[in-house]
Amino acid sequence: MSNSLGKLFTTTSFGESHGELVGVVIDGCPAGLALSEADIQAELDRRKPGTSPASSPRQERDEIRVLSGVFNGHTTGAPICLAVWNRDKDSSQYEKNRFVPWPGHADYTSYVKYGGFADYRGGGRFSGRITAGFVMAGAIARKLLATINIEILTHTVEIGGIKAIARNYDEIRRNAAGNAVHCANPQTAEVMLQAIEKARQEGDSLGGIIETVALGVPAGLGEPVFDTLEGELAKAYFAIPAVKGVEFGAGFAAAGLKGSENNDPFTAREGRVATTSNRAGGVLGGISSGMPLVARIAIKPTPSIAQPQRSINLLDMSPASLETLGRHDPCIVPRAVVVVEAITALTLCDLALIAGRLPRIIT
Amino acid sequence: MSNSLGKLFTTTSFGESHGELVGVVIDGCPAGLALSEADIQAELDRRKPGTSPASSPRQERDEIRVLSGVFNGHTTGAPICLAVWNRDKDSSQYEKNRFVPWPGHADYTSYVKYGGFADYRGGGRFSGRITAGFVMAGAIARKLLATINIEILTHTVEIGGIKAIARNYDEIRRNAAGNAVHCANPQTAEVMLQAIEKARQEGDSLGGIIETVALGVPAGLGEPVFDTLEGELAKAYFAIPAVKGVEFGAGFAAAGLKGSENNDPFTAREGRVATTSNRAGGVLGGISSGMPLVARIAIKPTPSIAQPQRSINLLDMSPASLETLGRHDPCIVPRAVVVVEAITALTLCDLALIAGRLPRIIT
Amino acid sequence: MSNSLGKLFTTTSFGESHGELVGVVIDGCPAGLALSEADIQAELDRRKPGTSPASSPRQERDEIRVLSGVFNGHTTGAPICLAVWNRDKDSSQYEKNRFVPWPGHADYTSYVKYGGFADYRGGGRFSGRITAGFVMAGAIARKLLATINIEILTHTVEIGGIKAIARNYDEIRRNAAGNAVHCANPQTAEVMLQAIEKARQEGDSLGGIIETVALGVPAGLGEPVFDTLEGELAKAYFAIPAVKGVEFGAGFAAAGLKGSENNDPFTAREGRVATTSNRAGGVLGGISSGMPLVARIAIKPTPSIAQPQRSINLLDMSPASLETLGRHDPCIVPRAVVVVEAITALTLCDLALIAGRLPRIIT
Amino acid sequence: MSNSLGKLFTTTSFGESHGELVGVVIDGCPAGLALSEADIQAELDRRKPGTSPASSPRQERDEIRVLSGVFNGHTTGAPICLAVWNRDKDSSQYEKNRFVPWPGHADYTSYVKYGGFADYRGGGRFSGRITAGFVMAGAIARKLLATINIEILTHTVEIGGIKAIARNYDEIRRNAAGNAVHCANPQTAEVMLQAIEKARQEGDSLGGIIETVALGVPAGLGEPVFDTLEGELAKAYFAIPAVKGVEFGAGFAAAGLKGSENNDPFTAREGRVATTSNRAGGVLGGISSGMPLVARIAIKPTPSIAQPQRSINLLDMSPASLETLGRHDPCIVPRAVVVVEAITALTLCDLALIAGRLPRIIT
Repeated sequence: MSNSLGKLFTTTSFGESHGELVGVVIDGCPAGLALSEADIQAELDRRKPGTSPASSPRQERDEIRVLSGVFNGHTTGAPICLAVWNRDKDSSQYEKNRFVPWPGHADYTSYVKYGGFADYRGGGRFSGRITAGFVMAGAIARKLLATINIEILTHTVEIGGIKAIARNYDEIRRNAAGNAVHCANPQTAEVMLQAIEKARQEGDSLGGIIETVALGVPAGLGEPVFDTLEGELAKAYFAIPAVKGVEFGAGFAAAGLKGSENNDPFTAREGRVATTSNRAGGVLGGISSGMPLVARIAIKPTPSIAQPQRSINLLDMSPASLETLGRHDPCIVPRAVVVVEAITALTLCDLALIAGRLPRIIT
Repeated sequence: MSNSLGKLFTTTSFGESHGELVGVVIDGCPAGLALSEADIQAELDRRKPGTSPASSPRQERDEIRVLSGVFNGHTTGAPICLAVWNRDKDSSQYEKNRFVPWPGHADYTSYVKYGGFADYRGGGRFSGRITAGFVMAGAIARKLLATINIEILTHTVEIGGIKAIARNYDEIRRNAAGNAVHCANPQTAEVMLQAIEKARQEGDSLGGIIETVALGVPAGLGEPVFDTLEGELAKAYFAIPAVKGVEFGAGFAAAGLKGSENNDPFTAREGRVATTSNRAGGVLGGISSGMPLVARIAIKPTPSIAQPQRSINLLDMSPASLETLGRHDPCIVPRAVVVVEAITALTLCDLALIAGRLPRIIT
Repeated sequence: MSNSLGKLFTTTSFGESHGELVGVVIDGCPAGLALSEADIQAELDRRKPGTSPASSPRQERDEIRVLSGVFNGHTTGAPICLAVWNRDKDSSQYEKNRFVPWPGHADYTSYVKYGGFADYRGGGRFSGRITAGFVMAGAIARKLLATINIEILTHTVEIGGIKAIARNYDEIRRNAAGNAVHCANPQTAEVMLQAIEKARQEGDSLGGIIETVALGVPAGLGEPVFDTLEGELAKAYFAIPAVKGVEFGAGFAAAGLKGSENNDPFTAREGRVATTSNRAGGVLGGISSGMPLVARIAIKPTPSIAQPQRSINLLDMSPASLETLGRHDPCIVPRAVVVVEAITALTLCDLALIAGRLPRIIT
Repeated sequence: MSNSLGKLFTTTSFGESHGELVGVVIDGCPAGLALSEADIQAELDRRKPGTSPASSPRQERDEIRVLSGVFNGHTTGAPICLAVWNRDKDSSQYEKNRFVPWPGHADYTSYVKYGGFADYRGGGRFSGRITAGFVMAGAIARKLLATINIEILTHTVEIGGIKAIARNYDEIRRNAAGNAVHCANPQTAEVMLQAIEKARQEGDSLGGIIETVALGVPAGLGEPVFDTLEGELAKAYFAIPAVKGVEFGAGFAAAGLKGSENNDPFTAREGRVATTSNRAGGVLGGISSGMPLVARIAIKPTPSIAQPQRSINLLDMSPASLETLGRHDPCIVPRAVVVVEAITALTLCDLALIAGRLPRIIT
């Protein structure tokens, strides 16, 4: 296991889906940042299920607790421990299929890696619930980034094959929070919601694509050749369960372009260096260019569906069939939006500290 | 700068395109691996330009030198320093456009990050030439992986929009080395070569997609939640210049599938756990499943083209035009194939050591 | 701040003296270790103050809570979060001298480093109370080491200038737990206790030296040239407040010996390589030799004494006098014994995992 | 093996005593530092043997080569590779005793750790020659520290039991370079030299103690609780062969003081916070206090002596006797002085970067 992310701004994750709690320790947070539990609670609430038809009805009353590192309303420079206790959990159903891995889940690989000792209830460490910790940490990271005028916008650009393209950043800022799927186009959002409802009725699930845009990132973040801006972000995104692909700027589409089409010409804009297009997605040579940082993350459809699955019993290798796992999100993409945003913020904080662009003390 | 990759099997890169040499230090290599300069030279020759119409005519006589860590024909457990001296270099052309960044290159971002002190000749640290070091290190990693029966196959699946799909692993193994673009389908290879030649004539360049498949990876590699198999690989791939996207298994296409389509059912095959499909690409929950590991990497078209580029002069922010940079690869995808393979091997070695699947002494 | 120790077996510390709790997250613990709260509680109780005349009368009811990473009585391979809540705390006295640093404490340096935002109550992050986390983590480490037959013996060899030398390891094992100062010689223990009592009456404090011996350490632990066995241990010991020196084997005394006196001749003992003396303290070239590992740690006298101290007011740089801080341990050496042992165990676990000498799964 | 030191300013060591070369890669060096080979050569020459009666007559013509990372006379921000080629080496004598470990050396432990594959010629990776790399890297670190007015003074305070105490820093600055043993007291230096000459005639060796003092270190370096200033320095010092103990300020002597004696009262001096004494050695709570940083390092007598040694043959465990190893330094303390200084500088650079006290670009 390796549950820490970041070199100077380090997020350590702990907790299980059906254990006592889910939490995170943030080490390296600059001192002096004004911080309250309400700040973090607001982010956590964005991730909450049960608020939209797209989500599972599990009612988690996730109340954030700040357990260390904050004093008199400010961060102290000491490690910040944040936790939410698990409350609405029902572990009874997991025992009987303990040795029959659900397809698409980590049941089998964690069984092998941890010799059958892993907590299998509700996915244990591999549950999406772990991302509550990412979101709590991300709330602090976003506040830090705001002190140097970095803003992150995140929205859903595809669900179940239905694509939405935002026309500009204002549109994302204005619209993405306004619908249950966090889509910048309200009309497309409606269609996506219908597709999700249909999948639910069929006992199936949908995947999608999330785009995150960081505005105000100064040129110079990223530490080539190995700790590149794209590389660090990509690594971090893959910590989100169900992520299967990551691309920046034109991404996979760049593979089909010509150099003359893909190169972004440099220009001067308001006295600063800019490019007239942004197919690079704000990164050149692994270093931020000052243009908007643009990443897209592919999310596979939730493996937990209401249709029977073929599997085997690990004890005797005999074929086994699995019934439905209970009620689950037919599409986790909407809930993953805030997680992607949190992960982006955590990574940018770390790279900004490394590059000397975030002060050690916020004043 | 952060030029080291890996936690227990650590590759540190150094050198510049037009400096004295390009090299690498490998720390943590198990002792006892039989190793000669010829072993590494063979890999390095696979990366050599000038052997195909797809490549630039620059003639690098890359002779590998093993400078430490090998004694009596075996690795000793000490750090292994490998280097190739730069010979065929002509730096004269770079001086005049020192302050006019080429679009798509790292000229501007490195100028900002290193305050104008970076070696700008031939891209300096940001040149594809740096990957010669990755390939040398990868040659050792591949030999190590072979001791535990891991084989890596890498091939070109798209160039300039022309797609090739391998029907099976034997086809890749048999065909990919047999043509200049490393495509598993000889007919498609021909079409790709024609497209490259056309781009060259137009003074343009093409991108593409590379697929790498690791066979024999035991279940259990990868350290969730942050140091996942996908995450570590993705981070490492982004160290290769021009990579803009990474996906595993069904990747971005998974976003358009339903859960019932995307889940890979478990089965028993020759007494071992397997899945009847492999849309997961050999990874579940960030841990290898024992199925073939499949990654695809998107490569943008080379920014270095023979067409004039619009840019600005960084000293006075005035518009500036750039003429051609000289002769360059119209498509670096074929040369990147061996680099992708090397990076895959380096990452798997590190994760195998961490998971306790590679011995500290090879006997 | 950097609150994580270890590369594969990583201990992350959090919490403050007068905050909500003190805790630790252990990442990388092998799965399958039988573990109960009682196991850890027993170690924590060894550190408890108020049980001897050498300690402060503060009554901490340190009840260990295992918050994650343990399931069905065994470690799962997931991060283990352990915590004790702070109960018997009285923070009222710290406010008035907030800007007058106590000599010998971290008040001033933390004020500078964290811009006045650090939690100053009871030393905050710099309190000895933080070591409760080390001890909890160390309890797990010791259980792990026991599975490969490594035993750690720790005892006080000097307090207030009064020296005690153990004649053999049995004596330490038998006697050190039997007296309040953890001295292997019961007679010397009495004299030490009298010295401590005298210091208390004088409102003063005493320092001392602790020796730790690890038996059964296999040859081969330690990763030169930088991550040596001595180096990793030394670094870790300096995380214990008040440590001012660390030595191994003959240590500083070796500086006065001749090579002919200091070299330990090799011999065969019961078919294994041994040395007839152990001035090296079980380490050669930064790697364990298989002989007992012997380290000694110098502890300065507690800065918290009942005598007035000269200082300055940081706000206006004016001279200031500090009265007594309340009741404190006149000698923390006895309580530090269990902490030294914990730190030794944590470091050995990490190095054993790195060297491939601890399995990833305990069966 | 783990041959890298430092988190942001990282020194990676490679090479062997009788291999091709000894070198180092420095990653994270700020761009813009004026640097020539002559700067580094000067430091390397301070380490050169054969210039004093205290040293071995081996004539190494150590000519530094800067292989990367420097361009137009300045550091570029890219990794800096430095190397010296091995020339005056005679490996013939090492073969015959390959399986008979010399007492006090790493022969046996490296044999175990690397399964007999380690390069045994002249100590291989465990030779003091490796420290030539530390010194080259340290030369750069010292230049960096000079840009923020940090000066390091290092001198010999004990050899063969003969002690010298410097009265003040000027004395060290003025005298330590003026004699072959780097002692700040010229009279004591004479006595030390006589003792070394006597040891040489007896075919024996002497150890000693080195003190290093860093002036101008700003308050705030060091990252508690684990990456303390003392801890990071101590870890780094133990990478120097023959180091057996490290202490700061009053060090082991503090164990015998009372709190009332050991506490350093705070005062204001020229408008800045200071202490009237410095028993803390410039560190409080693991963080620099702004007072001079004072460390002392114990060096054991060289194991290589001209007297026969008792050992065993590792192949059959039979007793074996070893004759003299050839001509060696009877006392390596004088040569270690510059190495201690280099290691101090490397560690301070890293901690200064982490604390945000060294700029990323030197202008």
